[in-house]
Amino acid sequence: MNRLPLAGVQILDCTALLPGPYCTMMLAELGADVIKVERAGVGDFMGQMSPGCYKYMNGNKRLLSLNLKEPKAIEIIKKIAANSAVFVEGFRPGVVKRLGIDFESLKDVNPHIIYCSISGYGQTGPNRDLPGHDINYQSIAGLFSISGDPDQGPVFPSGIQTADIAGSMYAVISILAALQQPGDTPARLLDVSLANSMASWMMPRFMEFIDRRQPQKAKFMGRGPYGIFETLDDRYLSLGVVEDHFWVNLCKLLGFKDWANDKSFRGWITRNERRHEITPRLEAAFKTKDLEYWLSALSDADVPASAVRGFDDWIHDKQFKETGFIAQNSDGTLDENNFRRFPVDFVEPVDFIKKDEKNKEEAPFIGRDNDAILQKLGISFTEIAGLKAKKVI
Amino acid sequence: MNRLPLAGVQILDCTALLPGPYCTMMLAELGADVIKVERAGVGDFMGQMSPGCYKYMNGNKRLLSLNLKEPKAIEIIKKIAANSAVFVEGFRPGVVKRLGIDFESLKDVNPHIIYCSISGYGQTGPNRDLPGHDINYQSIAGLFSISGDPDQGPVFPSGIQTADIAGSMYAVISILAALQQPGDTPARLLDVSLANSMASWMMPRFMEFIDRRQPQKAKFMGRGPYGIFETLDDRYLSLGVVEDHFWVNLCKLLGFKDWANDKSFRGWITRNERRHEITPRLEAAFKTKDLEYWLSALSDADVPASAVRGFDDWIHDKQFKETGFIAQNSDGTLDENNFRRFPVDFVEPVDFIKKDEKNKEEAPFIGRDNDAILQKLGISFTEIAGLKAKKVI
Repeated sequence: MNRLPLAGVQILDCTALLPGPYCTMMLAELGADVIKVERAGVGDFMGQMSPGCYKYMNGNKRLLSLNLKEPKAIEIIKKIAANSAVFVEGFRPGVVKRLGIDFESLKDVNPHIIYCSISGYGQTGPNRDLPGHDINYQSIAGLFSISGDPDQGPVFPSGIQTADIAGSMYAVISILAALQQPGDTPARLLDVSLANSMASWMMPRFMEFIDRRQPQKAKFMGRGPYGIFETLDDRYLSLGVVEDHFWVNLCKLLGFKDWANDKSFRGWITRNERRHEITPRLEAAFKTKDLEYWLSALSDADVPASAVRGFDDWIHDKQFKETGFIAQNSDGTLDENNFRRFPVDFVEPVDFIKKDEKNKEEAPFIGRDNDAILQKLGISFTEIAGLKAKKVI
Repeated sequence: MNRLPLAGVQILDCTALLPGPYCTMMLAELGADVIKVERAGVGDFMGQMSPGCYKYMNGNKRLLSLNLKEPKAIEIIKKIAANSAVFVEGFRPGVVKRLGIDFESLKDVNPHIIYCSISGYGQTGPNRDLPGHDINYQSIAGLFSISGDPDQGPVFPSGIQTADIAGSMYAVISILAALQQPGDTPARLLDVSLANSMASWMMPRFMEFIDRRQPQKAKFMGRGPYGIFETLDDRYLSLGVVEDHFWVNLCKLLGFKDWANDKSFRGWITRNERRHEITPRLEAAFKTKDLEYWLSALSDADVPASAVRGFDDWIHDKQFKETGFIAQNSDGTLDENNFRRFPVDFVEPVDFIKKDEKNKEEAPFIGRDNDAILQKLGISFTEIAGLKAKKVI
């Protein structure tokens, strides 16, 4: 039986809302012992916005509530930091300095610490002090200018928190990379900018832009046989034809004999340019049969396609179930206490994501683990103004 | 001077297009020695779709061209795999078995190998053999059902390859996590599914859905003071008001005294529900002044906002420049040979992303590094049918 990859790695987490907690959730799932510090009495605002999301992101951590305006709380942070491999914070730039837990201060108590700061625009540059949320980082990185209908203005398209998640993912990778360095490596400050992280995910499109010297959204978003189509039963499928052989397969399936053999339709860029011919004909064709018919026919014809699904479909998705992405109770309903926090199976020699134990932790609440954490430091919680122990909340 | 985190880690990469190469690009940037195998004569199709994107993703690797249908080529793969910590492949499930380079085969030559398979739906389950592209994985994970205008049908919204990139990011994290395990750990198979990776990024929204028992897109996408607004000069800004104090700041700035003090507008969920009152009034207000006026005023009032930018703005973005995300030539133009492949600075004690050396590599082409790689293995390229050495291409 292998150990989890981050077993024995202690991480001190002073973040809230999404980017920081989503990052440390993954690290905890990979085996790290994450101690999350939350505002005494108030907690993480995510607990109010979405209790389920809060639990998902933080249930696998130890929860310590502190009032960071108290000197005693800062002393506790430093004591824990002295024994932690990693410190993660998500305050606006400047706040940690004011609190006395900036990089320099924690380096003094732990000369090898990996100090990860997650902020909207990074710790330097003219934007560092601006307030912002996910939408603003997506916006400044340019995502809206290449999204949505090519014939319309910029749109804020996505139902997910793309820039927040981008920062989370790069924070995890940076921390894991720093953990690869020898243990006696001097302390490092990892400066994660959500805006720059978002922009990194746009680099493949940016390089296309550089190639073609054309900023037009149509170059990215105008795509003939690559889009969403409605079926006879008022449902939708997505079609993902990129390569010529898939295009030929599609034309044959739909009975478009004229197009199947027409070399003037060959090539991804060509088909994008001719989308005003292609799209209407495809729309009419797919509207003639039900979704299930098309999924089966497209699969048999070897054409990339899938259903357009919603959350209410997740519970019925055989692929999600068979790959262990979601779990069911014995009565067939969704197991709401057992969601994957990391989607990759380490198949051999053991699935070390601990499927059985996963998410069986005690429900999280503010200061849940105060007693145990402080006891180990030799501190009685009653000493500390503003700090509430487990039982009094 | 510290070593790069992955210095000394050899990675054998048999991937093409986006998900695999984007993953190994990051690993190479973090110091790994990536040997990328490409089809002899043909290369990676990305080289035709977007030469700039191909160079960005693969320029920091060693490039070996092989015809994998030749037994000699498989012998070479095995020889390199025997000395590699990591193997990454992105074929459709089943192909590596046919070629003789599946997990079992490579485990025989390297009992500690980290074998990472990146595929659309994963190596198991009913969808494993389906063809697919980025759009199909986004679609089946449900992203389209929560994106776009809340009053309209599903939309394929985003200009970036969200699912492909999700798989890349989880592949990197899985590989780095596996590298944390001791060197004598038995071989591991990391089964990365692009669809499940995409779904993982939707988990925060899925948990909201579970909380509220309502699948309606309006709950996610209907957002009063959180959206895009047009300004007098026909440009656009993004507004990111989530918390009440930002809402009050905004109302005061815009002169909405009635709303600033109205407690019935408090709360994120309340404002989303009242978007049909809020949005038109904001639209009218922002249309009265130019973008630059608003950016300055919103910043002074401490309201989260930013410009909606496009790629043609990147070169002028002071934040990108000051944080080193993009570089300029001495004449002020964009340095097109110097793009960041990893956005996080490791500020102390050294910026180990090697800013100066970065992207100064020889331009990539098919089989660029054949000679050097094969020479080390004691193989003359002339032995190998279908393998073209550097000079003959």
